[in-house]
Amino acid sequence: MRIKGFIVLFLIVFLFFSVYSFAEERVSKETQICLGCHKVVTPGIVSDWKNSKHSIKNFTGCAECHVTNISRIDSFDHNGFKIHTVVTPSDCAGCHPEESDQYTKNMMSYAYGNLVNNPIYKDLMNTINGIYSALTEEDSCLSCHGTKIEVKELKERETMMGAMKFPVIKGWPNTGVGRLNPDGSKGSCSACHTRHSFSVEIARKPETCSTCHKGPDVPAYKVYTVSKHGKIYSSKKEKWNFETTPWKAGIDFSSPTCAVCHVSQINVNGQVIVKRTHQMNDRLAHRLFGVPYATAHPKSPDTTIAKNKAGLPLFSELSGQPVTEYLIDENEQKKRISKMKLVCSVCHASSFIDGHFSRLDESIKTTNDMTLQATGLLLDAWKRGLANKKDSLFNETIESLWTEQWLFYANSVRFASAMGGADYGVFDNGRWNLSRNIQKMSDWIKFLEKKKK
Amino acid sequence: MRIKGFIVLFLIVFLFFSVYSFAEERVSKETQICLGCHKVVTPGIVSDWKNSKHSIKNFTGCAECHVTNISRIDSFDHNGFKIHTVVTPSDCAGCHPEESDQYTKNMMSYAYGNLVNNPIYKDLMNTINGIYSALTEEDSCLSCHGTKIEVKELKERETMMGAMKFPVIKGWPNTGVGRLNPDGSKGSCSACHTRHSFSVEIARKPETCSTCHKGPDVPAYKVYTVSKHGKIYSSKKEKWNFETTPWKAGIDFSSPTCAVCHVSQINVNGQVIVKRTHQMNDRLAHRLFGVPYATAHPKSPDTTIAKNKAGLPLFSELSGQPVTEYLIDENEQKKRISKMKLVCSVCHASSFIDGHFSRLDESIKTTNDMTLQATGLLLDAWKRGLANKKDSLFNETIESLWTEQWLFYANSVRFASAMGGADYGVFDNGRWNLSRNIQKMSDWIKFLEKKKK
Amino acid sequence: MRIKGFIVLFLIVFLFFSVYSFAEERVSKETQICLGCHKVVTPGIVSDWKNSKHSIKNFTGCAECHVTNISRIDSFDHNGFKIHTVVTPSDCAGCHPEESDQYTKNMMSYAYGNLVNNPIYKDLMNTINGIYSALTEEDSCLSCHGTKIEVKELKERETMMGAMKFPVIKGWPNTGVGRLNPDGSKGSCSACHTRHSFSVEIARKPETCSTCHKGPDVPAYKVYTVSKHGKIYSSKKEKWNFETTPWKAGIDFSSPTCAVCHVSQINVNGQVIVKRTHQMNDRLAHRLFGVPYATAHPKSPDTTIAKNKAGLPLFSELSGQPVTEYLIDENEQKKRISKMKLVCSVCHASSFIDGHFSRLDESIKTTNDMTLQATGLLLDAWKRGLANKKDSLFNETIESLWTEQWLFYANSVRFASAMGGADYGVFDNGRWNLSRNIQKMSDWIKFLEKKKK
Repeated sequence: MRIKGFIVLFLIVFLFFSVYSFAEERVSKETQICLGCHKVVTPGIVSDWKNSKHSIKNFTGCAECHVTNISRIDSFDHNGFKIHTVVTPSDCAGCHPEESDQYTKNMMSYAYGNLVNNPIYKDLMNTINGIYSALTEEDSCLSCHGTKIEVKELKERETMMGAMKFPVIKGWPNTGVGRLNPDGSKGSCSACHTRHSFSVEIARKPETCSTCHKGPDVPAYKVYTVSKHGKIYSSKKEKWNFETTPWKAGIDFSSPTCAVCHVSQINVNGQVIVKRTHQMNDRLAHRLFGVPYATAHPKSPDTTIAKNKAGLPLFSELSGQPVTEYLIDENEQKKRISKMKLVCSVCHASSFIDGHFSRLDESIKTTNDMTLQATGLLLDAWKRGLANKKDSLFNETIESLWTEQWLFYANSVRFASAMGGADYGVFDNGRWNLSRNIQKMSDWIKFLEKKKK
Repeated sequence: MRIKGFIVLFLIVFLFFSVYSFAEERVSKETQICLGCHKVVTPGIVSDWKNSKHSIKNFTGCAECHVTNISRIDSFDHNGFKIHTVVTPSDCAGCHPEESDQYTKNMMSYAYGNLVNNPIYKDLMNTINGIYSALTEEDSCLSCHGTKIEVKELKERETMMGAMKFPVIKGWPNTGVGRLNPDGSKGSCSACHTRHSFSVEIARKPETCSTCHKGPDVPAYKVYTVSKHGKIYSSKKEKWNFETTPWKAGIDFSSPTCAVCHVSQINVNGQVIVKRTHQMNDRLAHRLFGVPYATAHPKSPDTTIAKNKAGLPLFSELSGQPVTEYLIDENEQKKRISKMKLVCSVCHASSFIDGHFSRLDESIKTTNDMTLQATGLLLDAWKRGLANKKDSLFNETIESLWTEQWLFYANSVRFASAMGGADYGVFDNGRWNLSRNIQKMSDWIKFLEKKKK
Repeated sequence: MRIKGFIVLFLIVFLFFSVYSFAEERVSKETQICLGCHKVVTPGIVSDWKNSKHSIKNFTGCAECHVTNISRIDSFDHNGFKIHTVVTPSDCAGCHPEESDQYTKNMMSYAYGNLVNNPIYKDLMNTINGIYSALTEEDSCLSCHGTKIEVKELKERETMMGAMKFPVIKGWPNTGVGRLNPDGSKGSCSACHTRHSFSVEIARKPETCSTCHKGPDVPAYKVYTVSKHGKIYSSKKEKWNFETTPWKAGIDFSSPTCAVCHVSQINVNGQVIVKRTHQMNDRLAHRLFGVPYATAHPKSPDTTIAKNKAGLPLFSELSGQPVTEYLIDENEQKKRISKMKLVCSVCHASSFIDGHFSRLDESIKTTNDMTLQATGLLLDAWKRGLANKKDSLFNETIESLWTEQWLFYANSVRFASAMGGADYGVFDNGRWNLSRNIQKMSDWIKFLEKKKK
């Protein structure tokens, strides 16, 4: 009995060391030096890292991500190392080249430019932020879209370890999906792969997506939570395995999360059903949100190149007609949707799946039509001089109402159709609001007429 | 020691087989045949089923629910079986006759007709859906209320297993609570007992109810989450037992979920406190939502039979007076509320319970009064020709505002009172909005007056 | 082998008894008498208590909290004991004097008077509650702010144990943070330390705070859920230890909850980083919500003492200028914010923390400015006789819009900045609404002008 007890004790001690101290010994000399101080200075993130796969399985640590051999604009001397604070997709590409490469094709990676360099969206952004300043923008739209990171000077600061120089980083902190990084790369992997555990569990859980996809402009998370899928997730998730790869449907999880449908490789019966993608629209035929009219997805992740016949940087005319030359064709749409349907088919028969998607198609059609009605009212108001098109598309009441029609209500209905969102397609920013808003616009035009007289 | 180890190993292997393969051998020959293909074709739901009580405890499988001896309108030939896609309460009644029978008395089972066949609610529905089409309705109101399932033809489709014929099912997919099924039954048990695990755990968790009870028209789930009950649930649920029957208060759970108060049989100290009911208003004296004025609950689950003195299909006059002949009487109300109070009394003393319900009574009174104020404004506008009663009750601004008064704000306040919802009774669609909306209606009438001049 | 089995069995039985029955024997004779009946009468709360630290570790039970030696106004004879129903901070102070004392400095403890005895907020409250009654108030604003508990008479009631007399308690039930208790104390510890488990786990989880901090007036919980911190919590909380003291960052939890930043003692590497406080603004420099303009925190938790130059009971002029004499000075602000930054520094470097707080400072500035714009419009309307300042600050449309500007939108933006709330600073009651609302106010003034003519 004593011997058995000793073996058990030994195993426990061994396990403890292998996970904690042992890992620490196996990491690079550089990382060990980092840890020496940072265990004291920022113990929370060291602890996160210690429990991460980076630490336990790959023996990858601070230095592997934060220390560069070649000097970057944002590198600075720190206790004998050239380090940089902001880790970028290019840093991650060292070990994850495929994911990093896929992400460059992801529209999200262009989220900064697609907002700031498109005159219409820039106009919208300025309307929203009111009293303008760089700090406001960073805290507002760019918190999700990504900031422009700039390092211009070093500043001395007192620390636990004495006076040291650190860079003054403009646009920091930020983990926006389209962040412009000092090394020229775009995005931030830690938008989803939250520092410093970089846990695939967190990335696979829908709460991760909720940061940027919960508001009235993109109610994906809210729709998910009330869907059948969301309630199975909410009830059963404690019994699922979010850490394993490959991710096996029916074994590791029993209902899709955001990642299942849009990102993850899914295995069933030992077969790969769909491959992992970090191009989020890889299984999506239509672009549903952030646009007056839903259309096929753009070919390029850079949406600033769009131009309709009226010269506006949009992928559709104001009449809803798509500007097809910039958009993926029907074949590509079919290819993408058939990938999505493969995921659906793990649980659902064809009649179920087809029924579902025919409703989504109908919603795209009807919400586009409701935008068209709103646009008709707006164009009419402009034409009759009741509102002024020239100064801004967003700074008058009739324009704000028009914007809410597509940016909030049409989007919400489409998401509800796409993901089973019940009331988000009806009363909660849904069809009730789509119809009510046409009423509001008509009312407002009557007031403008009256005022003009 | 070797023998012990062997026994343990044997037990593990036995358990594994008894849960998985063994169960598969114990199910009917028919189900075994289904599984033969569907393990490959729809492995996700097979896996759900395998982990379900249906599989593990009852050896009930695909065939027991999807294969019928007698032909139904929606039955079709499928590899030698007469099967139907849509499983209905009548199918479930085979094993669960009592629950199925209770459900026919549940107002939810009439949710389709109560909406579509009541001219007022049909008018509201048409207003909401704007550009009308059957697909839009199915995706909108009927996603919760239930669709009308119709099978008119078979269509051939390529499958993994070669070309096969499948029915084209109108109104599918849908798990609405009042679905009209091809066999004449009403509803869908899988609205709450989510396929294909049919897990009582999921049904007992409040997220299940959130699908249809989260929007501004029925904010029950939102109110629950901020209530004391909701936060105990959220904190402690991992330690509760959601699978056991009878469900023992204080042992299996320590705070009510939706099911505890409205559905489940509750046991305390070995005694049955309340019996299970699938008639959801069995413990409710008042009908709080979906109506201009809260009244006693209707006697019949079919609410299309209502008619007030003005000839409108409502259970109250426009003045708020209840149409008592259709409503349960005071005795029945007392009987129901005393059942609910039995649930409360597991934790709360009488002074607590009575204090709570006196506030709910007051809320019913005051919210009815706020609806009355709004109705007064509406009637006045109609009378003075500022709005047109004839065409529709919902298509003019003053009418929309009136609708929001009772459908969103009065409801929200009542739910907040009924379940401890704090801000949902104040700023979040609560009393702030009830008062503000009266202001909006008065403002609008002033505008209409001005316009008329 | 038999002996070992016997020992294991004995240990299990012993453990069972030590946790359940044994604890029951170790509690006071008085509590044992209480339990004798209440195990049957209110078994749910007895079960909660049995699993609590009060029961298991401290052998503190019913009598220790509900039985008083000296008679209180609300004491009554109950089976030979002088007991009181409503347990107050003074009762808790018997064992928790430090926490109780800290709480008296907490602004929350004055939440009743700060609302009811400040003419401006009282005016707002009356506007909200519309049809006024004490029961409505208790159910509305006072559900969070706390009711005034009053006991005026005893009433006989039939019980399981025969006829007994119980007090009629006005304002009951209530667990509002500023409840006025019959013993003169303020607040309710069970607002956060939910009865009858008084679990520190529940208090440390953010859902607890959501009851009162989720609406548009205080969207703290909503902001938290979409923040990085919130999503780590949501993903990882099952593996955290919410019950242990001291609470060790990086070991017991890996991301802050509300309690971590605002209340709890935090230990790192065996060191106390910040001490526990029940004065919730102890680590906060600015008061962000419930006020037209964000200012430094008031010195006194009693905010009814405020008076600006215009004689209004506010801590700022209508121009936004803070009334500094009532507010903590810059030194105290620095002291508080540096405590908060110590919590941040467990994971974040200075450049990160400073970047974060510079955005919050900017948000305070810009949201105050947006309130100023709204106030300018309001003052103008008053001055020109388009609205009436005299009767109430909240009963006309232009006044309601002004209120929503600061009470909903400015607040929301500040919370989003303070806690990483993404869309709550943009579209979801954020900057979009701040700008849009100025538009609405201008529109309304145009209508009033037109109407006046």
